[in-house]
Amino acid sequence: MTRAYMDHAATSHLRPEAMKAMLPFYEGEFGNPLSVHSFGDAPREAMEAARDQVAHLIGATSREIYFTSSGSEANNMAIKGVAWMNRKKGKHIVVSTIEHQSVLNSAATLEKMDFEVTRVPVDQFGLVDPQAIGQAMRSDTILVSVMHANNEIGTIEPIAEIAKIVKGRGALFHTDAVATAGKIPIDVEELGVDLLSLSGNQFYGPVGTGALYMRRGVRLMPLIDGGVQENGRRAGTENVPGIVGLGVAAELASTEMAGWSEQLTPIRDRMIKRLTQELDHVILTGHPTMRLPHHVSVCVEYVEGESMLLMLNMKGVAASSGSTCTSKALKASHVLTAIGVEIALAQGSLVFTLGRENTAEQADYVADALPPIVQRLRAMSPIYPGNVRA
Amino acid sequence: MTRAYMDHAATSHLRPEAMKAMLPFYEGEFGNPLSVHSFGDAPREAMEAARDQVAHLIGATSREIYFTSSGSEANNMAIKGVAWMNRKKGKHIVVSTIEHQSVLNSAATLEKMDFEVTRVPVDQFGLVDPQAIGQAMRSDTILVSVMHANNEIGTIEPIAEIAKIVKGRGALFHTDAVATAGKIPIDVEELGVDLLSLSGNQFYGPVGTGALYMRRGVRLMPLIDGGVQENGRRAGTENVPGIVGLGVAAELASTEMAGWSEQLTPIRDRMIKRLTQELDHVILTGHPTMRLPHHVSVCVEYVEGESMLLMLNMKGVAASSGSTCTSKALKASHVLTAIGVEIALAQGSLVFTLGRENTAEQADYVADALPPIVQRLRAMSPIYPGNVRA
Repeated sequence: MTRAYMDHAATSHLRPEAMKAMLPFYEGEFGNPLSVHSFGDAPREAMEAARDQVAHLIGATSREIYFTSSGSEANNMAIKGVAWMNRKKGKHIVVSTIEHQSVLNSAATLEKMDFEVTRVPVDQFGLVDPQAIGQAMRSDTILVSVMHANNEIGTIEPIAEIAKIVKGRGALFHTDAVATAGKIPIDVEELGVDLLSLSGNQFYGPVGTGALYMRRGVRLMPLIDGGVQENGRRAGTENVPGIVGLGVAAELASTEMAGWSEQLTPIRDRMIKRLTQELDHVILTGHPTMRLPHHVSVCVEYVEGESMLLMLNMKGVAASSGSTCTSKALKASHVLTAIGVEIALAQGSLVFTLGRENTAEQADYVADALPPIVQRLRAMSPIYPGNVRA
Repeated sequence: MTRAYMDHAATSHLRPEAMKAMLPFYEGEFGNPLSVHSFGDAPREAMEAARDQVAHLIGATSREIYFTSSGSEANNMAIKGVAWMNRKKGKHIVVSTIEHQSVLNSAATLEKMDFEVTRVPVDQFGLVDPQAIGQAMRSDTILVSVMHANNEIGTIEPIAEIAKIVKGRGALFHTDAVATAGKIPIDVEELGVDLLSLSGNQFYGPVGTGALYMRRGVRLMPLIDGGVQENGRRAGTENVPGIVGLGVAAELASTEMAGWSEQLTPIRDRMIKRLTQELDHVILTGHPTMRLPHHVSVCVEYVEGESMLLMLNMKGVAASSGSTCTSKALKASHVLTAIGVEIALAQGSLVFTLGRENTAEQADYVADALPPIVQRLRAMSPIYPGNVRA
């Protein structure tokens, strides 16, 4: 049976080069980088080499990179840490309505701690209007967070424009780049962001790794207090093997991502075209052109996303519906709600996120497999117009 | 050259059985446990098996185990999370003065957030007096945290007695068991604790893994907000390979730890005896008998710890001075200060933490190597009594 893993937004395979680089640090070179003795030397040097590699991926300097255990941790560290550090300057934060749960729920936690949060709506394509961000800001706004691209609908946000407005108003600007880092080019100077989160398993690095870029001079209160690791910003014995794997994946992504985009964009476009043309009552979600090169997302009316996923799974196809982090609790996605998709239609959400191993043949396989599945499911639906008798 | 790694409190090697179990989840079985499709099945099942294994290590049930990225994260999650969840009940917290930095600094962060912290002193052996904990508690005390054993001086605390007093006063009780889990038997029911932190790399599991035990019914505000992972208590895509390795290490430690203690206790005792008898002006730090079976700690007067470490390192010996997490900034350890060691003497701190691969021959090698090192260093000291002329 053909197998097609198209759920790379959930997680991806670890690339063999990263695995190979990690193994020595699980085996012989296990020392703690903080050690005075020489067991710590190779791990420490490898960790700093990885910091260079991650910095290079996003146009930062090594000292601006702080390793974390995930993109979610990086988002929490940024939002909560900056808020707490700057609480005497102001207690107002601005986010968009389509941020990842790790940003939205961090903001909600801050509300319980007497901060105020403004959630700026997006348009029907999921685009954040930079002017709307400016209008939401107040004299006591200390932080704005808008994601670089949305993981559920693939829309790429106008981060540089937003950053210009935010910086002009004197607040700090964070972007969640988990969906973009290692996939499309990022230069923190061009984007003009102060903080940026990324996740290793999104670009074939190890799961359990992430990083926060923090521009020199930006200060925050640590999320994980303790020892002096990560320049006192993030305590806990460093996950050296993971960090090494993250570094290797970052370096390889830097050179390979252009090729991946070239490979995947036509596949993405072919899938979108076939899915929206060969099925009725199907809409594309997210922006048609300002879109991640590997991202296909649709809503299929009169069908439940989970049913489609299970039937696709029987055909060897791995896909997602809404955000991975909520996929066990299939509520209507907050992102689809935010772009105005009606609840009934949002239930039929399907997300295919492509990776470097995916082929045009797999895309056709999926596009061939889906219509009969949808037809079978719709045949059981009492509300599908085709079933409703006059 | 003989090499003797005796810095297991900093970190330990990964045992091959754990590595072997982890590899498939880095390679083929890379799916996200939250996936609806079957790529998530094996990872999810493996993760839940690991939860059983960790629960078994400490006499808990699986649903009481929450995976983290380190012991430090588990400590932060417990202290900050419980404090924030219970802030309407009270804002007072009690800790001992010899807690790990991840506990002390979490408490200090809470002080910035308008909580109050009482730090209870310890005796000359580092023992916490349960009565003193009771006396420090107030009607608004919501949480007490006392470590199971201290990482710098090896003293094992009377946790069950402390827990009884804390529970009698209606507060929650957390213990940092990073230094003990997987090394000496732990039963959370016998100890009577509500929360307990542990770290994988302390018992030959992978670095970058930890867990928080949280008794059923205990609630906290997540440290890492976001998705529904870990029952909504700790967001971020799960580090399945790491979790699997942690589980295997926990299971093997359950059955092997008694043998390790039997092997290492006489080595520990022989090292302590030789170091304190064959050198003058040397004291044992920590408790002579209520002590971790693998823990040797001394202070050598008129010598700097770091100099000894570097010269031991040239002999192939890896040891530590004070806590790993501050070892780059060799301030006088807060633990040695707390047990009343004078600053000058505290500078000469040496900590040897033994592991399963250490032998009596290595212990003798270290005990043979140290006196000439100390003599050489003292020969350069203007204050060593032997150098002071009448």
